[in-house]
Amino acid sequence: LKVFTLNSNTALAEEIAKHVGVPIGKCSVSRFSDGEVQINIEESIRGCDVFVIQSTSAPVNEHIMETLIMIDALKRASAKTINIVMPYYGYGRQDRKARAREPITAKLVANLLETAGAHRVITLDLHAPQIQGFFDILIDHLMGVPILAEYFDSKELHDIVVVSPDHGGVTRARKLADRLKAPIAIIDKRRPRPNVAEVMNIVGQIEGRTAILIDDMIDTAGTITLAANALIENGAKEVYACCTHPVLSGPAIERIQNSKIKELVVTNTISLPEEKKIEKITELSVAE
Amino acid sequence: LKVFTLNSNTALAEEIAKHVGVPIGKCSVSRFSDGEVQINIEESIRGCDVFVIQSTSAPVNEHIMETLIMIDALKRASAKTINIVMPYYGYGRQDRKARAREPITAKLVANLLETAGAHRVITLDLHAPQIQGFFDILIDHLMGVPILAEYFDSKELHDIVVVSPDHGGVTRARKLADRLKAPIAIIDKRRPRPNVAEVMNIVGQIEGRTAILIDDMIDTAGTITLAANALIENGAKEVYACCTHPVLSGPAIERIQNSKIKELVVTNTISLPEEKKIEKITELSVAE
Ligand SMILES: Nc1ncnc2c1ncn2[C@@H]1O[C@H](COP(=O)(O)O)[C@@H](O)[C@H]1O
Ligand SMILES: Nc1ncnc2c1ncn2[C@@H]1O[C@H](COP(=O)(O)O)[C@@H](O)[C@H]1O
Repeated sequence: LKVFTLNSNTALAEEIAKHVGVPIGKCSVSRFSDGEVQINIEESIRGCDVFVIQSTSAPVNEHIMETLIMIDALKRASAKTINIVMPYYGYGRQDRKARAREPITAKLVANLLETAGAHRVITLDLHAPQIQGFFDILIDHLMGVPILAEYFDSKELHDIVVVSPDHGGVTRARKLADRLKAPIAIIDKRRPRPNVAEVMNIVGQIEGRTAILIDDMIDTAGTITLAANALIENGAKEVYACCTHPVLSGPAIERIQNSKIKELVVTNTISLPEEKKIEKITELSVAE
Repeated sequence: LKVFTLNSNTALAEEIAKHVGVPIGKCSVSRFSDGEVQINIEESIRGCDVFVIQSTSAPVNEHIMETLIMIDALKRASAKTINIVMPYYGYGRQDRKARAREPITAKLVANLLETAGAHRVITLDLHAPQIQGFFDILIDHLMGVPILAEYFDSKELHDIVVVSPDHGGVTRARKLADRLKAPIAIIDKRRPRPNVAEVMNIVGQIEGRTAILIDDMIDTAGTITLAANALIENGAKEVYACCTHPVLSGPAIERIQNSKIKELVVTNTISLPEEKKIEKITELSVAE
């Protein structure tokens, strides 16, 4: 068994290698002068079960191409099996044709990984569980909820309500609520008439309670910060937020900083650059 | 028949569309906040023969992913055939295992294009003609030499010698020489002993002649500028250089500027950003 890392998550890769009890395989992943990916695997992997750790977080296209080229190199170097540990699966939101002539990039990426020669993909909290069906190779789908639940358990909060920021996330909120032995609530956005501002209607009891918002990912943080503010306006005592994947692009950090969110709990499926490590954000490890 | 362009070569695409006599298809190719590619094809292409113009020049990984996602969208929108006009085929130099455990990325990219759903690839001057065999779909392989030859013909130069900067390029030099009715010469680099500087040995008559160096691509311009200077030192009257693909990364522009090259003639398979359009460089169009 050999563990290699590409450029997206080197810190997590080292943690994982430590848990497994093997050193990270020797391999340099760099760029030629013109920007083409240059990979040198510096130890034999013939006949080995190889695990490659790489999230397809931003810069997503660079990270996807690194992954595919690494798979090609491993295949040609006679790896026995090629297992891609992809804690965050990029392009997961492009998982259906919402409008005419849209691509389904989540399926395309699954096909590309298979074509390159991957045998198995291990990932966390796909944007839709249906993406598992996009693969004909093995796929292991792990959940961030247990790690998030353990953290909130240790904080010994009282009168919790777990809140889903939209209809799509109710199942996930239900799972966290079960573990925390708490009820759930749902934010039910409605636009009463076209061109009239959305109303944040809250389904469930939140008054005087400690609300925990949960989503699979937080990208520009628009939804989650609006939801947090609506919860406070409607009488919640305080609001925590959590997600598995801290995409945190564009205005996200500023919005979180300025919101009513007391603490945002995320995992390290996407590694946070220094400038995004603000005090409000707690990072948990999925290495185990 | 519909012609679309992605982000690498919009100027060339417009020229091509004008030659063909159709407008460029309506399509926006942009990025979501987190850097994922967003493609909106804004007109029906059902049952059409679609041509997509895109070189996989730098940023190569962005341009490859744009191409694959566009192919996926076209396929799902029921295009009859999907034809990729890729004037410059990136990763062409990674066309073999030169060392152990190297990828063959040129083959990987061919497989990715097929997997996404391309029916045909039209390209110019592949780094090795063998790359044609990496495809099971149709591939049209065009040559830049006629365009370069026509330009040099029109300059009415005398006492020409066409020079290949290395052994690998002799066939190409021979083709240009035939069209210009000129002899050829070859630069024969040798390292007499390890750790001793290379000797630029010139095979063929160049004294008092106008030398035209030819290569398929010029990347960091190390080879071509050293060759030009060696030609002048060995008695050539003046040195022109030409290539199909102006990759021109890193120190290329500075090296060309400071070299003995009088004029560098390139084609627009890779579009030159403004800062690379220096006076010494002449750009010819391959649109026809
Ligand atoms: N990277 C992205 N950033 C923002 N929106 C996206 C992204 N990828 C896809 N989408 C859009 O998000 C919608 C799907 O998100 P959801 O409704 O949460 O499943 C679709 O309309 C997609 O076009
Ligand atoms: N983008 C690139 N920039 C520079 N060298 C490359 C690039 N891609 C591949 N190579 C190397 O270039 C060599 C092949 O070039 P050539 O001998 O001209 O066919 C191989 O050793 C490759 O590892």
